[in-house]
Amino acid sequence: RARYSNEMYKAASIPGVAVGLAYTYVGGDILFIEATMSEGRSELRLTGNLGNVMKESATTALSYLSANARKYGIDPKKFESQTVHIHVPEGAVPKDGPSAGVTMLTALASAVTGRKVRPYLGMTGEITLRGQVLPVGGIKEKVLAAKRAGLKELILCWQNEKDVQEINPEYISGVQFHYVKTMNQVLELALM
Amino acid sequence: RARYSNEMYKAASIPGVAVGLAYTYVGGDILFIEATMSEGRSELRLTGNLGNVMKESATTALSYLSANARKYGIDPKKFESQTVHIHVPEGAVPKDGPSAGVTMLTALASAVTGRKVRPYLGMTGEITLRGQVLPVGGIKEKVLAAKRAGLKELILCWQNEKDVQEINPEYISGVQFHYVKTMNQVLELALM
Amino acid sequence: RARYSNEMYKAASIPGVAVGLAYTYVGGDILFIEATMSEGRSELRLTGNLGNVMKESATTALSYLSANARKYGIDPKKFESQTVHIHVPEGAVPKDGPSAGVTMLTALASAVTGRKVRPYLGMTGEITLRGQVLPVGGIKEKVLAAKRAGLKELILCWQNEKDVQEINPEYISGVQFHYVKTMNQVLELALM
Amino acid sequence: RARYSNEMYKAASIPGVAVGLAYTYVGGDILFIEATMSEGRSELRLTGNLGNVMKESATTALSYLSANARKYGIDPKKFESQTVHIHVPEGAVPKDGPSAGVTMLTALASAVTGRKVRPYLGMTGEITLRGQVLPVGGIKEKVLAAKRAGLKELILCWQNEKDVQEINPEYISGVQFHYVKTMNQVLELALM
Amino acid sequence: RARYSNEMYKAASIPGVAVGLAYTYVGGDILFIEATMSEGRSELRLTGNLGNVMKESATTALSYLSANARKYGIDPKKFESQTVHIHVPEGAVPKDGPSAGVTMLTALASAVTGRKVRPYLGMTGEITLRGQVLPVGGIKEKVLAAKRAGLKELILCWQNEKDVQEINPEYISGVQFHYVKTMNQVLELALM
Amino acid sequence: RARYSNEMYKAASIPGVAVGLAYTYVGGDILFIEATMSEGRSELRLTGNLGNVMKESATTALSYLSANARKYGIDPKKFESQTVHIHVPEGAVPKDGPSAGVTMLTALASAVTGRKVRPYLGMTGEITLRGQVLPVGGIKEKVLAAKRAGLKELILCWQNEKDVQEINPEYISGVQFHYVKTMNQVLELALM
Ligand SMILES: [Ca+2]
Ligand SMILES: [Ca+2]
Ligand SMILES: [Ca+2]
Ligand SMILES: [Ca+2]
Ligand SMILES: [Ca+2]
Ligand SMILES: [Ca+2]
Ligand SMILES: [Ca+2]
Ligand SMILES: [Ca+2]
Ligand SMILES: [Ca+2]
Ligand SMILES: [Ca+2]
Ligand SMILES: [Ca+2]
Ligand SMILES: [Ca+2]
Repeated sequence: RARYSNEMYKAASIPGVAVGLAYTYVGGDILFIEATMSEGRSELRLTGNLGNVMKESATTALSYLSANARKYGIDPKKFESQTVHIHVPEGAVPKDGPSAGVTMLTALASAVTGRKVRPYLGMTGEITLRGQVLPVGGIKEKVLAAKRAGLKELILCWQNEKDVQEINPEYISGVQFHYVKTMNQVLELALM
Repeated sequence: RARYSNEMYKAASIPGVAVGLAYTYVGGDILFIEATMSEGRSELRLTGNLGNVMKESATTALSYLSANARKYGIDPKKFESQTVHIHVPEGAVPKDGPSAGVTMLTALASAVTGRKVRPYLGMTGEITLRGQVLPVGGIKEKVLAAKRAGLKELILCWQNEKDVQEINPEYISGVQFHYVKTMNQVLELALM
Repeated sequence: RARYSNEMYKAASIPGVAVGLAYTYVGGDILFIEATMSEGRSELRLTGNLGNVMKESATTALSYLSANARKYGIDPKKFESQTVHIHVPEGAVPKDGPSAGVTMLTALASAVTGRKVRPYLGMTGEITLRGQVLPVGGIKEKVLAAKRAGLKELILCWQNEKDVQEINPEYISGVQFHYVKTMNQVLELALM
Repeated sequence: RARYSNEMYKAASIPGVAVGLAYTYVGGDILFIEATMSEGRSELRLTGNLGNVMKESATTALSYLSANARKYGIDPKKFESQTVHIHVPEGAVPKDGPSAGVTMLTALASAVTGRKVRPYLGMTGEITLRGQVLPVGGIKEKVLAAKRAGLKELILCWQNEKDVQEINPEYISGVQFHYVKTMNQVLELALM
Repeated sequence: RARYSNEMYKAASIPGVAVGLAYTYVGGDILFIEATMSEGRSELRLTGNLGNVMKESATTALSYLSANARKYGIDPKKFESQTVHIHVPEGAVPKDGPSAGVTMLTALASAVTGRKVRPYLGMTGEITLRGQVLPVGGIKEKVLAAKRAGLKELILCWQNEKDVQEINPEYISGVQFHYVKTMNQVLELALM
Repeated sequence: RARYSNEMYKAASIPGVAVGLAYTYVGGDILFIEATMSEGRSELRLTGNLGNVMKESATTALSYLSANARKYGIDPKKFESQTVHIHVPEGAVPKDGPSAGVTMLTALASAVTGRKVRPYLGMTGEITLRGQVLPVGGIKEKVLAAKRAGLKELILCWQNEKDVQEINPEYISGVQFHYVKTMNQVLELALM
């Protein structure tokens, strides 16, 4: 039933992969978001059976990193001669919604900077263009799925803290929560 | 219920963010419009689940600033080597209509010039290509929502003044109204 | 009910704005068509919730001016490094049909040449690519709306003269009619 | 009822206009096809509410002239720096079908070479990419409409001759018929 | 009923035309496929009311010739500065399916190399990207139509030989069959 | 019933062809995936009546090879001046799903490097952007079809091993299985 070799991912040894949390009609789940850069035409390729809202999250993540390139030590010309590809595995499953924003941002920033993402870390939250993280739904189901999958740290929007407080603490013992307001906080926590 | 860290926004410390007023099926609300510029192909990226009319407002704002670049101290070549991105947060919510025109214009002008938008300021109104501001609907609901959200000044079309006069003054005490005819007046009031 | 500050428009002080006549399901009306040129990629931007037939009118107007550039004192290279934008305000209202052709031509020619459009002038008529003006429908309703709105001169196709003659002369006293066969006649009458 | 100033057209004094024959649900009719060339990006603009089959005829005419440029004294590089626009007036009326092929070819060849089209000439027929003219339907209605409109010469496919022979000769006295097999014959007959 | 001047075609005197076999709802038929090259932007134009599967055949033929250019004495840079147009006449009739693959390949190869196609030759078969010919349906109807139309040689996939063997030999006397496995065999048989 | 000259393919003598396994509504089947490179605009052409999920697999394969070019001895600039075409024969049959990912990757890598694919080898599995192979469905039907078609070695995801173990060993005697975790393992096994 576990389709990924999750251990490999969660202790991810390559830059460009981040772990998100999803809330689907069968309950909470974790999902992986992958990003690569390659020489070529300036283009954003999005695959994995993504809906329009989820594609917009990826566009927003790219614009944020591009507009704030210097802040993250990225050559602002880098995106002009590179093809960026963001993929969400399990192409047979349609995916949508804004809540993978922080995960897309993290995977992309990891690919661009070459810095790996902290292992056993998951996250969920909408992103904005100017750097805020917004709260999302399905927190209880997502957090329980993260725990089941063996994640040890989670990044959530500060406005989702109240949703976590409603979960029986026994169910999530050993999981450390990071509540953030900004996308900058996400990247500081997530990138090694 | 308040999804944004509104305080941060309303006392916005970064250029490129403006506050608009929306009239949705659940009543009046405020919304944030974000704009960024980044090095790259001349392109207008629009995200946030926007309908065609709202996208046309953004295109109109961009053409107005581009055609009147010198008047606002903008290098007319600036748009030729920069990607402009306008985002309206809460990507899960479809948005449409022309009334965010003044807000898009303001966010974009703020991003291009680097001048911040006046804090605690909201606005609503359709824009035209040659610089007029046109009246919009839902004024009562929008203005009450602005008051609730803590906004202190509002920019409206002069033809919406009559709609404000129909509101019980007690409900909107402390809110200062600016009635305008032109997009130039909007930018003079809004940009610091 | 009057959404524009019509006085300002009709005594238009800026090039690029022309007044057309529309026949909608609520009766005759006037409409404004705005055009701007700005430095940038050669592109025709069309906004204002326009249907395909109306967009084709704009394309036809642009090709006519481009193919006859020298006749109107326009540098034929001008369109190669400029973005042309034509907007029809009131973005919430869908608009379609060929009858705004002469108005689009006039607004565009005004923007390109920098010559203003004669004040208190309205017009309606289909255009062709090689310079003819074709008759359109709804003349009675359009002419009465023009009179109500304070327009003083109207340009119509010569084949619409019979439609005007069916209107009670008392209703349109003080309005001067110009009947034309060609787009060249339109521009000679309209541009100052 | 006659919407064009047909006299002007039929004694056409400008290159780029040719007269076709149409068979609509209200009977036979004549139609004008207009073509212009202007400095600019290599592009084929098609307007006049055309269906896909009719658009393909225009594309085919353009490729034929481009591939056989030298044969018609056309600089083969001409199409690389010119925008070609083909327009069929009366934008409110949807039009489709392959029978305007010869007319599009003629209007386009006239615009490119600067040679005028013979006055009082009409034509109808499908074109192919390698230079054949194919027969079309509705010949009786088209020919009678051409007679009514005052046309004096008609170009048809040789395989439509039998359709003309079924018309009462009295109805078409004074009309001269040219039956052709190739697009080259069309252009030799049509261009002055 | 015969819409083409078939004699001219079948004894084709110009490169770029090949004869295919079609199986339509009214029975078997022959069809002509035309190809031209002209100076201009690298582009594949497809006309003749073609469905997606038939368009993909054309794309596949182009890629095959491009990838194997040297083998056929074609300058591999040729496709980079030439517009390729493939047209299937009778634009009013929708056409689809993979069986015109070999015919498209042949017409295109003929246009590119300037070598004419063998007269009185017809063909039908799907093509692949790496050079195989695949069998197709409707062989009996297609072959009988080819015989009626006066074709003297037919190229078919070797796996369609069994379908020919089921036809009464009297009906197809005088028709020579070539059974092939590869696209290379098609071109060696078809090009003069 | 066997439409391919399978022997030729399975003992494939040209680079760019790989054999996949499909599970269709009529049962298991093998399918061929073909890839070519040709001089020209940087573009990915996909033909063979492919659905969106299958097209995304091809895009993912291309990005993976492009981002990991040096690892496979590929000039990273190669994709910038070459047109890549991936075709899945039998254009009349719609195809979709992620399970052809490993086959597309292999065909593409073979075309780019010029290394042939191991003969009598089949494979099935989803690919990700960062190099993992994911399990797919229909394994029993696919494996039996591979056996019937004469394949001798199969590459599957390690998580599909349990599905193979449920098949009666007599049915698949003589077939060698390779279970992999990564796309790198696929290419090391498949390319000669
Ligand atoms: Ca899962
Ligand atoms: Ca997520
Ligand atoms: Ca809200
Ligand atoms: Ca607003
Ligand atoms: Ca109005
Ligand atoms: Ca008008
Ligand atoms: Ca008519
Ligand atoms: Ca015609
Ligand atoms: Ca036929
Ligand atoms: Ca065929
Ligand atoms: Ca098969
Ligand atoms: Ca497969």
